[in-house]
Amino acid sequence: MSHLYFGDLASVRTALSSLPSVDSVALGAAAERNAQLTKPPQALGQLEGLAIWYAGWRGTAQPTITAPQVVIFAGNHGVAARGVSAFPPEVTVQMVANFNAGGAAVNQLARTFGAKLDVVALELERPTDDFTQTAAMTEADLCAALSAGWDAVDPDADLLVTGEMGIGNTTSAAAIAAALFGGGAEAWTGRGTGVDDAALRAKTEIVNEGLARHPQANGDGLEALRCFGGREVAAMAGAILRARHLRIPVILDGFICCAAASALEKAQPGALDHTVAGHLSAETAHRRLLDELGKIPLLSLDMRLGEGSGGTLAIGVLKGAVNCLSGMATFAEAGVSGS
Amino acid sequence: MSHLYFGDLASVRTALSSLPSVDSVALGAAAERNAQLTKPPQALGQLEGLAIWYAGWRGTAQPTITAPQVVIFAGNHGVAARGVSAFPPEVTVQMVANFNAGGAAVNQLARTFGAKLDVVALELERPTDDFTQTAAMTEADLCAALSAGWDAVDPDADLLVTGEMGIGNTTSAAAIAAALFGGGAEAWTGRGTGVDDAALRAKTEIVNEGLARHPQANGDGLEALRCFGGREVAAMAGAILRARHLRIPVILDGFICCAAASALEKAQPGALDHTVAGHLSAETAHRRLLDELGKIPLLSLDMRLGEGSGGTLAIGVLKGAVNCLSGMATFAEAGVSGS
Repeated sequence: MSHLYFGDLASVRTALSSLPSVDSVALGAAAERNAQLTKPPQALGQLEGLAIWYAGWRGTAQPTITAPQVVIFAGNHGVAARGVSAFPPEVTVQMVANFNAGGAAVNQLARTFGAKLDVVALELERPTDDFTQTAAMTEADLCAALSAGWDAVDPDADLLVTGEMGIGNTTSAAAIAAALFGGGAEAWTGRGTGVDDAALRAKTEIVNEGLARHPQANGDGLEALRCFGGREVAAMAGAILRARHLRIPVILDGFICCAAASALEKAQPGALDHTVAGHLSAETAHRRLLDELGKIPLLSLDMRLGEGSGGTLAIGVLKGAVNCLSGMATFAEAGVSGS
Repeated sequence: MSHLYFGDLASVRTALSSLPSVDSVALGAAAERNAQLTKPPQALGQLEGLAIWYAGWRGTAQPTITAPQVVIFAGNHGVAARGVSAFPPEVTVQMVANFNAGGAAVNQLARTFGAKLDVVALELERPTDDFTQTAAMTEADLCAALSAGWDAVDPDADLLVTGEMGIGNTTSAAAIAAALFGGGAEAWTGRGTGVDDAALRAKTEIVNEGLARHPQANGDGLEALRCFGGREVAAMAGAILRARHLRIPVILDGFICCAAASALEKAQPGALDHTVAGHLSAETAHRRLLDELGKIPLLSLDMRLGEGSGGTLAIGVLKGAVNCLSGMATFAEAGVSGS
């Protein structure tokens, strides 16, 4: 598999240990510019820090967002055969067709905010293994999925949102979060697309079975991705990692995206400094996961769709913030008296 | 003043008592369409009800937002001479010039979301009277301001955001809210653009003086507007009322906009059914005011700039919601299996 960007996990670890830092000169210049704009101090609230953060990663005090990219990764899960989702597994491939035809929610949201949407289906005919029986993926599978994510990022993008589609993937994400942060399956397992009470209990038990099967994943980001899958989750991690190397800021989506991101943060603290949380999902454990990551969500609208929808909606907030920083007049330019 | 839309308060009361209702057929058709879209039930959270609400007011199950209008009203306040703001009164006219030159935050936000921005300066050379001494406006002044708001709405707009600029106007808004909802000045007076503790105490005392001076304003929407001003606050009320008659949905901005809207709701319960709350402002009393109005804000980003900025940022959320409702494929269209 010599065509893969990551031939082995050692090369992933090398990419994780060589992360570029924010441009502190641009960061300082953006903060200085922000302080001179025609508004009372802090009157734009969270928009101000958000725009300065973006400016720092883009390396300019007056950035613009003209080429946002949304990438949806799709994968199938062996554990889906255990009935952990309200939907049958064939919905994954059906929804990929829907993304490609422009009919899903994320298509409308990407269009609304001028983002390019790319869809990457990952061996849908070959689900990961059931993680209650064995590791979801081999090391080679994991490297292939991380490479697919890495390769999917457009180097000319100036903003990235990663989304996912995969029936059963809140189960994977719950197992990853539990392995990385502890607290047991109960703390991290939720209703996903809408399972009932009995199915939620069964889903929680399945996550517990997986945790018992793979104790070596505890606290180990890459091993948690490998053991619990899915391919689309690992691919999101690969894309977020690539974006860091390209200094492309990332808006995280909901629970599953944040579970993928958590694997990077566990493997290399600070690996998510180029990311913000787009929204707080209605999936119950998302708040806890954001707390673990120290991220404050931009939106909180009870969304729980996945497919990058919450992160894509937050593009509007980030665009607004960046346009204020870059487009507003200063007090001096406008001849407005300061306080 | 026969050229005014409202020649007297009786005509305002007539407009308030003849409000059109939502189109219940369109509302039902939109809800039915939403239930068939390719997503789990409720997975778009608040976006779903928001889009259905918009569809109901626009009278179609598949609406679009192509002509949003932001109108900024500016006025000067006699009470500003009492030092209630961190900024001097001449900033009002300076900021109007900044709006017209395209340099303010709201200009960037309106551009970001494809909204037309109109600026209406209301007799800036003639501040309202100091409400601790006399009513801020005469009945004729109030009718003129309401008429200015009424006339400012573009009948071809499909969405309205009303914003304001007026040094001293959080003081007016606090007095209006206190008169309409009780609780005293302490419950409603905040830091506005950023006054310190001593100035906040003085501002609160000034609001209390006003409340004591005008007890007839208690619970009376139009009288509260007249007694406490300002012209820009009353104009926002006039614009929101006009939008209702045109079935143009409105996104409310922060504390001052909501105080203006509250006057309509007190005068005619249900008068704000065509409005949503764009954001929760950092102005402390805004949350209490939204609770009184029964409105859940779309955004909560600690903004406290006014000038329609929070409401304009929320245009993005509403556009996203409406585009999902109108653009998504149904399960049948996409060939996706339901749950």
